[in-house]
Amino acid sequence: MKQFAVIGCGRFGSAVAKNLYKNGYDVLAIDENPEIVQNISEYVTHSASLDVKDEHALRAAGMRNIDVAVIAIGSEIKSSILATLVVKELGVKYVVAKAQDELHAKVLYKIGADRVIFPERDMGVRLAYNLTSTNILDYIELAPDYSIMEIVTPEKWIGKTLEETDVRAKFGLSVLAIKHGEKITVSPNAQEVIQRGDVLVVVGVNEDLQRVQEKV
Amino acid sequence: MKQFAVIGCGRFGSAVAKNLYKNGYDVLAIDENPEIVQNISEYVTHSASLDVKDEHALRAAGMRNIDVAVIAIGSEIKSSILATLVVKELGVKYVVAKAQDELHAKVLYKIGADRVIFPERDMGVRLAYNLTSTNILDYIELAPDYSIMEIVTPEKWIGKTLEETDVRAKFGLSVLAIKHGEKITVSPNAQEVIQRGDVLVVVGVNEDLQRVQEKV
Ligand SMILES: Nc1ncnc2c1ncn2[C@@H]1O[C@H](COP(=O)(O)OP(=O)(O)OP(=O)(O)O)[C@@H](O)[C@H]1O
Ligand SMILES: Nc1ncnc2c1ncn2[C@@H]1O[C@H](COP(=O)(O)OP(=O)(O)OP(=O)(O)O)[C@@H](O)[C@H]1O
Ligand SMILES: [Ca+2]
Ligand SMILES: [Ca+2]
Ligand SMILES: [Ca+2]
Ligand SMILES: [Ca+2]
Repeated sequence: MKQFAVIGCGRFGSAVAKNLYKNGYDVLAIDENPEIVQNISEYVTHSASLDVKDEHALRAAGMRNIDVAVIAIGSEIKSSILATLVVKELGVKYVVAKAQDELHAKVLYKIGADRVIFPERDMGVRLAYNLTSTNILDYIELAPDYSIMEIVTPEKWIGKTLEETDVRAKFGLSVLAIKHGEKITVSPNAQEVIQRGDVLVVVGVNEDLQRVQEKV
Repeated sequence: MKQFAVIGCGRFGSAVAKNLYKNGYDVLAIDENPEIVQNISEYVTHSASLDVKDEHALRAAGMRNIDVAVIAIGSEIKSSILATLVVKELGVKYVVAKAQDELHAKVLYKIGADRVIFPERDMGVRLAYNLTSTNILDYIELAPDYSIMEIVTPEKWIGKTLEETDVRAKFGLSVLAIKHGEKITVSPNAQEVIQRGDVLVVVGVNEDLQRVQEKV
């Protein structure tokens, strides 16, 4: 079983730590703020209050058996860099670090981070997408131009069969599944009738997905 | 065309604003920090530097034609509440507000926010999921127990046909699509041969999706 460390338990880091632990993994949570450490302690395996700029303290924190470390210090660039350096040196195999911007990301990669993430930016992109395509509930980008999307059934399609919607011929999209409440029909056939409130899981080129939103 | 306002242009807010504008929408961006406003000004339609606690200034900022406002002030609860109150009063129809925690969210809903979001927490959950299921690239939760996932082809399946993997019979999963680089085969047939590096888009019950990760 993999062992995890989360360094920096703000909103992002604490969610990572708690959910790893909830999924059954050992988690060591570290933050300089003793109150934060106190609050998270019952949701993780081990916790420690220390400032990562105190390299000594960090080295003593029991990082030896950690397989994956998540450095989730977003605001203090110096600390996130130092933490990344030290955990890599201590032999942690996989280090994920949160960055503030591209420059920060570049430095993190240079000093050995295996993956750099921008949680706020990524969620911002998702929200912008979601707000402008009111029917889209969620999506996966398969390739730069190709996505899977969950869309709420357009008014026009209610009561029609899949075939009658012309979704494939006119929009070049494939319907992978239909959700009726909790029930899911995978690979629905052409005669399936679409009902109000159904959610369609469709795959296709982004442009066509956009077009279907606008045209129906 | 919908008109948007983003109030608070930190990492999250600025990503929302820039991406709405990139998608062709009018965006008014507001932040108390003039440097932030300066930086974002070329990526949005209008921008203004003001402290939302100055209710007067906020009311004068041209919120009249705004359809959707995103309040992305995460740290200063008082400001996010005040901003939500004022934009609702000014007649903005749909207000999305970022919250720090459940208590903050409750207050935001009470004073009229139409949607409350936790970007860091949501990304934290996603990362925890992603780190513990090493093959999962992305996923959509279709229902509480049912998801679509993109998984990297397990070593064991390379060179086999879909049928030979027993993915449906043994794991109860359906393969919706196969990605070979930029090429995507939707609804692959049972004789499709899986190659190294292929990404499979599968749908099924979460438990079965978990099981396939562990067993193959
Ligand atoms: N030098 C440090 N040593 C240990 N912990 C630190 C250090 N600097 C910051 N932290 C902790 O890291 C956490 C996240 O830091 P900060 O709030 O600056 O980043 P953030 O990216 O804004 O966080 P959030 O996830 O809330 O968006 C905080 O709980 C903070 O106490
Ligand atoms: N009273 C206010 N009026 C206007 N803008 C404000 C106010 N308070 C904060 N802001 C701006 O909102 C933005 C986000 O605030 P803050 O950094 O506190 O939240 P955050 O949730 O940590 O942000 P991030 O999206 O970076 O994670 C900042 O750019 C800040 O300047
Ligand atoms: Ca913080
Ligand atoms: Ca943040
Ligand atoms: Ca900020
Ligand atoms: Ca912050």
